Amino acid sequence: MIDGKTTLIAHIGYPTESFKAPMIYNPWFAQRGINAVVVPMGLKAEHFADGLRTLFRLTNLRGALITMPHKVSTMELVDALTPTARIAGACNAVLLRDDGTLLGDQFDGAGFVRGIQRKGCQLEGASVLVSGCGGVGSAIAASLAGAGVARLGLFDARDASAQALAARLQAHYPQLQVGTGSNDPAGYQLVVNATPLGMNEDDPLPFDVSRIDPQAWVGEVVMKTEYTPLLRAALERGCQVQVGTDMLFEMIPAYLEFFGFGTATAEELRAVARIAY
Amino acid sequence: MIDGKTTLIAHIGYPTESFKAPMIYNPWFAQRGINAVVVPMGLKAEHFADGLRTLFRLTNLRGALITMPHKVSTMELVDALTPTARIAGACNAVLLRDDGTLLGDQFDGAGFVRGIQRKGCQLEGASVLVSGCGGVGSAIAASLAGAGVARLGLFDARDASAQALAARLQAHYPQLQVGTGSNDPAGYQLVVNATPLGMNEDDPLPFDVSRIDPQAWVGEVVMKTEYTPLLRAALERGCQVQVGTDMLFEMIPAYLEFFGFGTATAEELRAVARIAY
Repeated sequence: MIDGKTTLIAHIGYPTESFKAPMIYNPWFAQRGINAVVVPMGLKAEHFADGLRTLFRLTNLRGALITMPHKVSTMELVDALTPTARIAGACNAVLLRDDGTLLGDQFDGAGFVRGIQRKGCQLEGASVLVSGCGGVGSAIAASLAGAGVARLGLFDARDASAQALAARLQAHYPQLQVGTGSNDPAGYQLVVNATPLGMNEDDPLPFDVSRIDPQAWVGEVVMKTEYTPLLRAALERGCQVQVGTDMLFEMIPAYLEFFGFGTATAEELRAVARIAY
Repeated sequence: MIDGKTTLIAHIGYPTESFKAPMIYNPWFAQRGINAVVVPMGLKAEHFADGLRTLFRLTNLRGALITMPHKVSTMELVDALTPTARIAGACNAVLLRDDGTLLGDQFDGAGFVRGIQRKGCQLEGASVLVSGCGGVGSAIAASLAGAGVARLGLFDARDASAQALAARLQAHYPQLQVGTGSNDPAGYQLVVNATPLGMNEDDPLPFDVSRIDPQAWVGEVVMKTEYTPLLRAALERGCQVQVGTDMLFEMIPAYLEFFGFGTATAEELRAVARIAY
């Protein structure tokens, strides 16, 4: 029950319609008696810089969850960044610290990696294609590198994004083999869609599924439906898959800790969540 | 249940701790299946002008409830004002219209007047003291004038506020007798506390209760407790009273209509409200 003492967490992105986090955090807060609420707030890119600053002047706001299209631009708007956010080149969490400064962090990649590892996907020494090098793709690539992946293929429709990410990764992980410029999934043990393709009914698939090794894993970041057209095609091909919300549920414990709300397990969160899958 | 399609109504003021509206509107929305939520947002005066503009850029925000200390400053920040708001010199409601412009309105006064009339207080031809000529006091004075009061005493610690309100009232109601400069409640049939005195434990009473006619009515705007020290003293003196939340419950139907959420009765709202009185 929201009252005048409720702590706000702004969930900022645009559009808001497909947001899932409020239906996970808010039932969790209710079950645990935590007086806090995640509030979806739609902000278009041109209003984001001013908007973020203003929202953090709200006296009852403790932090923000940042989602598309703002994860990269948040980098320049906070006072400090964790190493994870710096390598990823993107933020999806902002905390107002006691001294009034803003700290940006990034949990997408950790959520994705933890989820797929718990399913049995072996990342140590593996080769992975990450298609889409925006905020979420960069974060996943950074966490994959941290998990010991040997070879990363990076693709983005804007090749400069893939190259910039490759340079950041290689600066931190000199052993890592990184290639850019190809969206061909052949020869990878894990293939990740980190583009928004799949959000709309008539989107093309993000890459050529017929080229994926049937032994490979396919991971998805789109949460619009449980089994996106990509995942359906991958399952048909015999691949093992990770759905978009697995990344979400696995990263929420990290967010809860970051904002000072204790922690939870992915299973506990799935049990209270009011989302369809 | 808040989701990505939820319409936001910002409840803006500072401090937020004593806000009541979320515990009335939100259970009402839940009961009626309306996907909307009132969210308390604390904004200090120095951040209000920027903050209001930014909040109305949120793509899922339809309107705002404005409370202390922003009701007067809102006047200059909206594109259009209703006549009620213009006479009151204060806004407590802002609607984002389809054409992107902001309309300011004012329901405090209507809520106060409707509540006390329903209790049987006769306003036609009456004499009334309004102590406190900020946003809420101005609104109540404007609505009292509209209800046919014959004589209004206006008092504010900043005498210029009382005089400015007197001038606005007399421009619209040339027959109305208006006096300023005295906080003495003797000789009035209705005495209204429209100051924040009573919010804090150690506040003095807003005026000398021993001078109130025992036949008079005493109305309160402070909602911190049901019976504030002023109302307790007035009851002891034999007066009839109106508590702060009566004004609130009586004005909410007007807000609901203004924001396009249908309507309700004060009784229906009291039945779902999750507040102590």
